[in-house]
Amino acid sequence: MSLRVLGIDPGLTRCGVGVVEVDAGRRATLVAVTVIRSAPDAPLEQRLMTIGRGVEELMDEHRPDAVAIEQVFAQANLRSVMGVAQVSGIALRAAAERSVPVALHTPSEVKAAVTGYGSADKKQVGAMVARLLGLAEAPRPADAADALALAICHAWRRGGVPTPASPSGGLTPAQRAWREAEKSLRTPRLGA
Amino acid sequence: MSLRVLGIDPGLTRCGVGVVEVDAGRRATLVAVTVIRSAPDAPLEQRLMTIGRGVEELMDEHRPDAVAIEQVFAQANLRSVMGVAQVSGIALRAAAERSVPVALHTPSEVKAAVTGYGSADKKQVGAMVARLLGLAEAPRPADAADALALAICHAWRRGGVPTPASPSGGLTPAQRAWREAEKSLRTPRLGA
Repeated sequence: MSLRVLGIDPGLTRCGVGVVEVDAGRRATLVAVTVIRSAPDAPLEQRLMTIGRGVEELMDEHRPDAVAIEQVFAQANLRSVMGVAQVSGIALRAAAERSVPVALHTPSEVKAAVTGYGSADKKQVGAMVARLLGLAEAPRPADAADALALAICHAWRRGGVPTPASPSGGLTPAQRAWREAEKSLRTPRLGA
Repeated sequence: MSLRVLGIDPGLTRCGVGVVEVDAGRRATLVAVTVIRSAPDAPLEQRLMTIGRGVEELMDEHRPDAVAIEQVFAQANLRSVMGVAQVSGIALRAAAERSVPVALHTPSEVKAAVTGYGSADKKQVGAMVARLLGLAEAPRPADAADALALAICHAWRRGGVPTPASPSGGLTPAQRAWREAEKSLRTPRLGA
C-alpha cells in the first residue's frame, strides 16, 4: 500500500508543487514536480487564476490521496503573506472540491521531518529531498524542493502508512530517513 | 446606462455579499444582499468551499458588470486576517474566471465614499446604505451593509458612469450622496 501526496508551497510568483509516492516501507518516489509561476506585473486576480488553474490541473492529473500545504505565518513582508494566504485558500478549496484530505504543516515541522532538524536551511532541505528521492541533485528552485519536502513530511506524519517492523523501529522518521539517505550515498541510484 | 456591481466583504464565518445597480444619475438600487456563512467548527477547507460556492452562485445568478472586494490589511487578529485573505483570494479568482473586472477598496475609501467621512463607524455606514438604497432600515448584519457600501463605492469611484451635469457637479460623490440622502429623508420612499 502506498500513499500519493501532493505538496504545495504556496506563492504568487512561484508556487512549488510536488507529488511523491511513499510506500509502506516509507520509501519516497518522485512522481512529479514543478513550479507554477505568474507574472508579477499581472493583475492580482489573473495571477490567482493562473496559479489556481495550475494547481487544479496537477490535482486532476495525479489524483493524490492527500494534499499537504505549507502553513502561512506572519512574516516581515505582510504584502507577500497576503498573496501566500490567497493562494493557500484557493488550494485548500480545490482539495475540498475533490474530496481529497488536506492538511497544513509548518515549515519547521517539514524541516524536522525530512532533515531531523527544525531549523534546517533551504540548502539542507533541498539536499535531503534529493537523497530521499534518489535524485542527482536538489530540485530547483527551492519552492520545488519545499513542495516535495512537504509531501514527504505529510506521508510520514499523517499518512497512516504503518511503520515497518525493523531494527530501525526506534528511530524517528527523520532519523530513519537520514540513515537511509546516508546509505543511499554509498549506493548510488539513478536519478529520477 | 446602469452599472451592476457585486460587493464582497470577505470573511470565513460571515461573508457579506451585496448587488446594487447604479444608474447614470448615480442613484443606487438594491438587487440582492445576503451573508454567506460557514460553521466555525468545520475544517478550514470545507469552510472555504462553502463560501467560494456561495460567492460563485451569486456571480452566476446576478451577472455583475464589476466586482468590488474589501482590501485586507494587517489587524490585531492575524488568524482572522488569514481567513479573510483566503476568502478574498477565492473571490478574486472567481471574478477572473468569469472575466468580470474586479477591484479592491479599503474600508476608509468605502466609508468616505458613502458617508463623506473615512472614519465613519458601522452604524453610520449602515444608516447611509439604507438611505441611499431607500431601505426602511440598515441591512443586517453589518457585513451585509458593508458589502453594499463597497458596491456603491465602486460604482461611484470607478464605474465609469458619467457624472451628470447638474448644479451639484462640484460636489464629491460622497457629498452628493449625503445631500441626496438628506433629501430622501424628507421625501420618504418605499423600502426595496
